[in-house]
Amino acid sequence: MGAQSPYAIGVDLGGTFIKAALVTSAGKIDIQDRRPTEAESGAEGVAARVSEQVNGLMARKGLAPGDLAGVGIGVPGVTTADGMVILAPNLNWHHVPFKRLLSERLGLRVELDNDANVAALAEARVGAGGGCDTFVLFTLGTGIGGGIILNGRVHHGASYAAGEVGHVCVMPDGPLCGCGKKGCLEAITAGPAMVRHVRDGLAKGQVSSLSGVDDLTPEAICKAADAGDALALETIAHVAFYLGIAIADIIVLLSPNVVAIGGGISAAGDVLLNPIIEATKAESLEGMFEHTKIVPATLGNDAGSLGAAFLVL
Amino acid sequence: MGAQSPYAIGVDLGGTFIKAALVTSAGKIDIQDRRPTEAESGAEGVAARVSEQVNGLMARKGLAPGDLAGVGIGVPGVTTADGMVILAPNLNWHHVPFKRLLSERLGLRVELDNDANVAALAEARVGAGGGCDTFVLFTLGTGIGGGIILNGRVHHGASYAAGEVGHVCVMPDGPLCGCGKKGCLEAITAGPAMVRHVRDGLAKGQVSSLSGVDDLTPEAICKAADAGDALALETIAHVAFYLGIAIADIIVLLSPNVVAIGGGISAAGDVLLNPIIEATKAESLEGMFEHTKIVPATLGNDAGSLGAAFLVL
Repeated sequence: MGAQSPYAIGVDLGGTFIKAALVTSAGKIDIQDRRPTEAESGAEGVAARVSEQVNGLMARKGLAPGDLAGVGIGVPGVTTADGMVILAPNLNWHHVPFKRLLSERLGLRVELDNDANVAALAEARVGAGGGCDTFVLFTLGTGIGGGIILNGRVHHGASYAAGEVGHVCVMPDGPLCGCGKKGCLEAITAGPAMVRHVRDGLAKGQVSSLSGVDDLTPEAICKAADAGDALALETIAHVAFYLGIAIADIIVLLSPNVVAIGGGISAAGDVLLNPIIEATKAESLEGMFEHTKIVPATLGNDAGSLGAAFLVL
Repeated sequence: MGAQSPYAIGVDLGGTFIKAALVTSAGKIDIQDRRPTEAESGAEGVAARVSEQVNGLMARKGLAPGDLAGVGIGVPGVTTADGMVILAPNLNWHHVPFKRLLSERLGLRVELDNDANVAALAEARVGAGGGCDTFVLFTLGTGIGGGIILNGRVHHGASYAAGEVGHVCVMPDGPLCGCGKKGCLEAITAGPAMVRHVRDGLAKGQVSSLSGVDDLTPEAICKAADAGDALALETIAHVAFYLGIAIADIIVLLSPNVVAIGGGISAAGDVLLNPIIEATKAESLEGMFEHTKIVPATLGNDAGSLGAAFLVL
């Protein structure tokens, strides 16, 4: 049992799919399972489906409970130290004691954390972080999420909600964020803000290859920037400047070995990453910047289930 | 030896005085010694004087080397993990291997760290932090210093320079800081910036009790604010707003149990602390602010020698 067990199961619980992976103690995914979440069946229904997955994975490898360090779960919501899900909008859960529900069903050790923290944990240990001491993940998408990993563990802090990298203030009295604060990184650099920045430019009459695009996405903007579109490049520079401020703040405070950039928008690659690195350098304290590597996240969609397994490995 | 030893000696090495304290394993100062630094005698001369102090304190209590966990030193400069002082302007030191110099002289375990980190360590363990898990100190003076303490240890990060709370960016493209960056907290809220803010107000013709004051100090400004002076109150509100942004950033990232405010300017008390707390609340993520206590530092001038002792206790 515990640290000596050869396997753990990590569960990435999303609003649409539940992905579960049997992970070796060396941090490699062995076998996986994916099935619909069917959130409308409620927390008990979801717990039943996760249990089926876990038992299914164990059966496929002929494993006994003693072969497993336990089951870790990443949840898209606000969690507590004792495994409650306070709020998970995509699941329509409020104050669900999911750790208890699942451990009662399975008779196994269960640990639970927020999905962004879990992804950060995976990247820190076996992804972009490569096992470093101080690691920070940014996930760029519809929102800006992330997590802070110190010595191989999620840093939760007093509120259990630490690591909200998207809510660093990068523009005092700036645009209102969904959180109610002004000038958060997320309000200025997440997908919707990128699209708005391009729309504003088009409305001002800027010539751009994006002017004919109906379904304007961050991906389309990055692609246009890659092709040299001036408005798209200006938008990327704007986003990179503010991401640079937030990353530089994290560097002066925590001096991470590695800051990794993941999430849908990060698929844009160097056209986004290089300006972020340049902006961070310009905003960082001399003698500190060069100690932090700023790199793409490497685990993609596996980060969720891998990181969940690391909650118990 | 080690953790079982009943005492440690902490040395607060300043540009003018060296203060040394014999500290019990319970974290109390037993006896102290203070003597001039005489920095002009060079690192060997300073090491000789520190050795005399350490031996003197031991002799006064009749202690043998085995009674001491070791000697810790707080240095006003940039230090490394192996006890080098890279730069200490007040001592005119460049690349001085002071840990080695002193441990060779004393034949005792010696540990060394930056003075701001050392003060933070003391406040975290036995001062304002009361032994909490996640603690951040701000020292408000001519500059803004501080330190981050996690689980009773200084967080150094990859560069060994983490915890530079004065260089969080709170005003993109703001005034130039001494560090070369723009809009650092220190450039906007430290003593010189407070004085400049008042001078600017006076130059614009604002009526103030400070208009006749020749030697304008942050202390005088806080005193005037306490007496209701409008320009002084406006200056305090300005400083508190930007301190609030920096503290809120630290709350969303690290969610400290306690943020303590120390340094010369903090002696102003509630007239400064209350606006800082209000500003932090306004800038903090809901559900996180209430988990962080924002309080005055409590150890005053003892923080340096106490914290130095904690490097080895």
